[in-house]
Amino acid sequence: MTGSPLGARSAAWEPRVRDSFARQALMTSLGATLDSVVPGQVTITMPYAPAFTQQHGFLHGGTVASVLDSACGYAGFSLMDDDSAVLTAEFKINFLAPAKGDHFRFEGRVIKPGRTLVLTEGRAFALSDTQTDRGETMIATMSCTLMAVRDRGLKG
Amino acid sequence: MTGSPLGARSAAWEPRVRDSFARQALMTSLGATLDSVVPGQVTITMPYAPAFTQQHGFLHGGTVASVLDSACGYAGFSLMDDDSAVLTAEFKINFLAPAKGDHFRFEGRVIKPGRTLVLTEGRAFALSDTQTDRGETMIATMSCTLMAVRDRGLKG
Amino acid sequence: MTGSPLGARSAAWEPRVRDSFARQALMTSLGATLDSVVPGQVTITMPYAPAFTQQHGFLHGGTVASVLDSACGYAGFSLMDDDSAVLTAEFKINFLAPAKGDHFRFEGRVIKPGRTLVLTEGRAFALSDTQTDRGETMIATMSCTLMAVRDRGLKG
Amino acid sequence: MTGSPLGARSAAWEPRVRDSFARQALMTSLGATLDSVVPGQVTITMPYAPAFTQQHGFLHGGTVASVLDSACGYAGFSLMDDDSAVLTAEFKINFLAPAKGDHFRFEGRVIKPGRTLVLTEGRAFALSDTQTDRGETMIATMSCTLMAVRDRGLKG
Repeated sequence: MTGSPLGARSAAWEPRVRDSFARQALMTSLGATLDSVVPGQVTITMPYAPAFTQQHGFLHGGTVASVLDSACGYAGFSLMDDDSAVLTAEFKINFLAPAKGDHFRFEGRVIKPGRTLVLTEGRAFALSDTQTDRGETMIATMSCTLMAVRDRGLKG
Repeated sequence: MTGSPLGARSAAWEPRVRDSFARQALMTSLGATLDSVVPGQVTITMPYAPAFTQQHGFLHGGTVASVLDSACGYAGFSLMDDDSAVLTAEFKINFLAPAKGDHFRFEGRVIKPGRTLVLTEGRAFALSDTQTDRGETMIATMSCTLMAVRDRGLKG
Repeated sequence: MTGSPLGARSAAWEPRVRDSFARQALMTSLGATLDSVVPGQVTITMPYAPAFTQQHGFLHGGTVASVLDSACGYAGFSLMDDDSAVLTAEFKINFLAPAKGDHFRFEGRVIKPGRTLVLTEGRAFALSDTQTDRGETMIATMSCTLMAVRDRGLKG
Repeated sequence: MTGSPLGARSAAWEPRVRDSFARQALMTSLGATLDSVVPGQVTITMPYAPAFTQQHGFLHGGTVASVLDSACGYAGFSLMDDDSAVLTAEFKINFLAPAKGDHFRFEGRVIKPGRTLVLTEGRAFALSDTQTDRGETMIATMSCTLMAVRDRGLKG
């Protein structure tokens, strides 16, 4: 709606993001919820789920990467025009600490929007229900390049 | 068993890998199977599963990343000594084509083993039951750094 | 000196960083200057130099990566103990805009310090002497994993 | 000239690559030579040069990254049509061993060509004049995403 670097190009950016997120079966399977979305920024939350863990009982790194990828993807998609669908070209994730917690928060935001490529960054945090002193631990960071695709018959 | 660059340091490398893989709840949830393991190289297969898709009905990039991460992780773990557990320090994944297929194959292999850090690479392929000409399509490549951790009370 | 997450472990952190930077012949060759260093954060500046450009006359992406790598490396090294030398295990760089400018600023900072692995992030900016409106353009972002090495006979 | 996945789209692919390489001032400054180029694959060599080292006297990681970036870039450029210039969107480099040697070889090759994005991989090797047993050591691997740009007034 605005020409600013982080302005949405679609008037329907919010329903477009929420509708697309709802169609990501993986997010539903993981129990992930789209917590908040503003143009260029998305937060997703997810409770601990034993079904998606690695061999030590922590969330699998791939689970963390999955939700961060969606957070980054929708941060970028929120800025795209009505004719664009979003695909991830690549991402890199660094793991800072085991994904040990009761709840997890995943933040994605756009660093640089472009017509074809959009650079985004993500942060994942573990939260404990009983943790009193620190509240949360950063467990992963992501940098993610999205590609806006048009004319491929793909719905956002 | 051997001192060669890609020799296993544990006589029990195969049961160690298979046991640890069996404890990765995410792999079970995804329907992923440890197809083959030799020291430094692992292949995992997985059928298409609607529960783990993105908004266009293809496997979610995070699903592909999850299985590739495990393939790389166990390729590295197969070379580690009995006292080591394996954690992923970071990975980068490039997506080459939509994860569209009936079956998927994920290959991980060690590029450079080290006492603390192990560099691995992964390749993911989509296979179609009806595809006659090409047989398979490479859909993603990964580079992944593993860390061997000791004395943290973690079982492989 | 302090036990805080971003506290230096060496009392001589500043001379150690400045001495090591001075021994990086590449930085001298590029005309790069260590602008500021505090524990966990380093800024390096560099003027435009035709000798280090790519085919369109902009700074080569490898030149940008080189200085960002040093900025990240010394951000991490500033937190290491007296017995550690620093090596880069891996980095990823995303290019946001051509490295077109009169001066460049490279910022590195520690995201997560660890005894063995240190995660850092970098940002590079182009500055124009005549640019009046914006002042600077972000041209690249980096995520970089450092490794603290001990007992290898390497001087910081 | 051919429609095959790794076929060049320009009849003048070789002079285009060699001309563009010759205009990369950084490669000249480093003493790097374009050793061989075939469609989708490029090899660059470079002697050890004290001016481009880090604090321990090995080639700086940024120097290694610079030449690998060019190797990957020209591997991709060799496949592009006459109207395209090439820019690096991002790369990730893993360092396997210190860049210690008398000569270095850098190999870039295309993994997946696309009209807009081209995925490439690079490998760097150190060679010693006196090394008799092994001949060479792999020192770094890179994955690199190139972008073909058109209509921006950029010469290859």
